[in-house]
Amino acid sequence: MPSGTEVPTRRRITRFGPDGRQEVDDELAAESPLEIRVGGRGYAVTMRTPGHDVELAAGFLVSEGLVSASEDLPEVGVREDLEGDVVEAEVRGPGALVAMDRNRHVYTTSSCGVCGLASIDAVATTSRFDVSTDPVVLSVEAIGALPDRLRAEQAVFDSTGGVHAAGIFDASGASLVVREDVGRHNAVDKAVGWALLDGRLPLTGHVLQVSGRASFELVQKAAMAGIPVLAAVSAPSSLAVDLAERLGITLVGFSRRGAFNVYAGAERFG
Amino acid sequence: MPSGTEVPTRRRITRFGPDGRQEVDDELAAESPLEIRVGGRGYAVTMRTPGHDVELAAGFLVSEGLVSASEDLPEVGVREDLEGDVVEAEVRGPGALVAMDRNRHVYTTSSCGVCGLASIDAVATTSRFDVSTDPVVLSVEAIGALPDRLRAEQAVFDSTGGVHAAGIFDASGASLVVREDVGRHNAVDKAVGWALLDGRLPLTGHVLQVSGRASFELVQKAAMAGIPVLAAVSAPSSLAVDLAERLGITLVGFSRRGAFNVYAGAERFG
Repeated sequence: MPSGTEVPTRRRITRFGPDGRQEVDDELAAESPLEIRVGGRGYAVTMRTPGHDVELAAGFLVSEGLVSASEDLPEVGVREDLEGDVVEAEVRGPGALVAMDRNRHVYTTSSCGVCGLASIDAVATTSRFDVSTDPVVLSVEAIGALPDRLRAEQAVFDSTGGVHAAGIFDASGASLVVREDVGRHNAVDKAVGWALLDGRLPLTGHVLQVSGRASFELVQKAAMAGIPVLAAVSAPSSLAVDLAERLGITLVGFSRRGAFNVYAGAERFG
Repeated sequence: MPSGTEVPTRRRITRFGPDGRQEVDDELAAESPLEIRVGGRGYAVTMRTPGHDVELAAGFLVSEGLVSASEDLPEVGVREDLEGDVVEAEVRGPGALVAMDRNRHVYTTSSCGVCGLASIDAVATTSRFDVSTDPVVLSVEAIGALPDRLRAEQAVFDSTGGVHAAGIFDASGASLVVREDVGRHNAVDKAVGWALLDGRLPLTGHVLQVSGRASFELVQKAAMAGIPVLAAVSAPSSLAVDLAERLGITLVGFSRRGAFNVYAGAERFG
């Protein structure tokens, strides 16, 4: 029944730190879409770290209120013929009717927002701005200083210790806007929304600095706003790196105390 | 045009730390639903920290590919008559057709998963298990030790530094299951799914310990699995506290090095 253990993926990255520039191998948490089908019909797609997918689907159906005992879920298993990225479930009892009724076809994600745009190809063809040709040149000093600049403008974090932040900076490190929210993607939407309303899209030559991890979805949001560089304080997922490579976005992670890793687009560092 | 600044909310909490038990005032990041309407029809609901809501809606529509310049968004504003929790937008150009076509009615959230269940009342009436009557008695020592126990079982985090974890423990601190994922809610779903498939629901007398923040959605997931205690390493949102109080769930936050805050249900600490 268990569908295996989460396995990190290995990538070649560029590290800028006290020892200068190094090319090293690094391990990333994997992230890819899982479709959950109920009674033969697509019910939801979630961006997840592959592994324990049957348990993930079962727990998701508990949260949805469709099942509350193993008897409610007489069959649940991975479709190996579909590369293991589909779990099919049969639901018994009242939950079966609820599932048919809901017919949600909702795309949930590791941090939401990709709804309906679950594949890299879909995202790549959706953005109106081509950031891959953005000629911005990045400096290690300016990028390494952004987390502290972001943190310095976080008013809500100071009092609660519990919100994400997103800021848009130019390549010299000057701040355009910083926004906060309990949701990482909301903080980015607030910053990008400010820029749209101020007539500043596409944000050519700019950097999106975020306080948390770099997910697939945040790379997508950068692309949609025409931002060529996404920098995160924490780790990126494997799919975030894949999408950044595909779109020509420079992806920076683990940016702390002036040192950071570059997972894609390191050529923008002169 | 800007719809105000994010303002924390203030709550009375119980703090267990080196100085013993204290009742103190604390500030929480606010979280509540925002509905985004396009052309008069509901397009999405997101759980957000109130403030800069017009910018949030505008940025969300950029990410959705509906607008890419301010001219695409001739009108966008907060409906003050609806308590400020609705933003109405008019979209011009091809995005207007896409919006009508999509007709999504999707509920996105600060970390997804509440889709379709955006109000506390809806959640409160959905769970089949009543955790409010769970007679579990908690000890400061056992709860304070859980973050280290969770961390000790995180295999993927060790190599990548970038995943969330969720574990189910009994009240003495013994581990039933620990799961990891790039998505916080996925890690919980994997752990709860394991318990369902093993015939262990409802998880009476148990504790759900998570590595990150405690959102509204994680409280909901605990309730759906019959878990009376949710403990988080980071901050809870205001709506998470509201829901925990309503459902009779003990909510622990900022659990680090044996000290923690209790935001709801402190009476379970003997």
